[in-house]
Amino acid sequence: MTDQRATNITWHQHHVTREDREKLLGQKGVTVWLTGLSGSGKSTIAVAAEEVLVSRGRLACVLDGDNVRHGLNKNLGFSPEDRTENIRRIGEVAKLFAECGVIVFTSFISPYRADRDLVRGIHPEGRFVEAYVSASVDTCESRDVKGLYKKARAGEIPEFTGISAPYEAPSRPELVLDTNRQSVEESVGQLVAFLEEKGYLSS
Amino acid sequence: MTDQRATNITWHQHHVTREDREKLLGQKGVTVWLTGLSGSGKSTIAVAAEEVLVSRGRLACVLDGDNVRHGLNKNLGFSPEDRTENIRRIGEVAKLFAECGVIVFTSFISPYRADRDLVRGIHPEGRFVEAYVSASVDTCESRDVKGLYKKARAGEIPEFTGISAPYEAPSRPELVLDTNRQSVEESVGQLVAFLEEKGYLSS
Repeated sequence: MTDQRATNITWHQHHVTREDREKLLGQKGVTVWLTGLSGSGKSTIAVAAEEVLVSRGRLACVLDGDNVRHGLNKNLGFSPEDRTENIRRIGEVAKLFAECGVIVFTSFISPYRADRDLVRGIHPEGRFVEAYVSASVDTCESRDVKGLYKKARAGEIPEFTGISAPYEAPSRPELVLDTNRQSVEESVGQLVAFLEEKGYLSS
Repeated sequence: MTDQRATNITWHQHHVTREDREKLLGQKGVTVWLTGLSGSGKSTIAVAAEEVLVSRGRLACVLDGDNVRHGLNKNLGFSPEDRTENIRRIGEVAKLFAECGVIVFTSFISPYRADRDLVRGIHPEGRFVEAYVSASVDTCESRDVKGLYKKARAGEIPEFTGISAPYEAPSRPELVLDTNRQSVEESVGQLVAFLEEKGYLSS
């Protein structure tokens, strides 16, 4: 009996592949990494793109501060080491979603090139799209939806990206969404068109 | 112009809900948490159940040592604190998948009740299924597919669950898969039937 069970136990070992799931979903799994200053429009674009894709029958989701900072990464602070670990974990989770066939948008400032390159490096070729949501500090500060720039200028937020901490713009992003010059609709349209052209919206 | 942009930026804020994605997928997102001794059959059952569901057009995936220990949790060891953090992170990631509408099987020994209860606690009601893959130490040791029990008995692996470290069986699991008595096929059949009966395989 024991032998028979042992045989059964190794009988079914066939891992479903990413391709199997992509065929099921009619799309390709990919991490779309939105990076840019606070107020550049990352989350707005991510949420709108998610909505457009789901309305078109594609499975998309967003990883952002709301569902990551208070969950997976709630035990991380804002030291340099913790910021790097924050991005590393998000990258690993995004990779798992992409492997599952999901189109996952991540919305984090992620100011350091090395951190983003590390995330790129764990993804297979073509499964990581770095989308630079480009807006100047002036533009972001003039929006200041959350009042963070005001606080940062007053010295109430230390190491605020763009004011008192650096932002390293991507050197070779797959996509630049220039929100200085175009509306959210235009940026979302550009992003979705890119995904369509590159074949991510079919399996 | 700046005001107009700022207006645009907050125009589209509608988060896709879990229900939207579930309707798209024709299923309900849920974390199926397989817990049990090494060799009890967790991964075999998880991988087989994943295969059955995907072949039926349902989106399922597996989180296990292969895709978590070398990625998200590669900076964790085997100290008590690290084991707890290991399970916590897996629980948070599983929750994200379930929120995305995916049926996610997790396959980890997860020997401590408190750790599993913590994971249960972060899930909404009905979105966490604890499945106890029940097999005695004798049964698991007689299989010893990876030769780990032999090493543990020889003292080569410290704190091996079931031999030199405790396993706390679930007190009120949603499901018990008794692999002492039934084959993998039977356990997988039982698991899939449970998911079907409880309505997880339709939206």
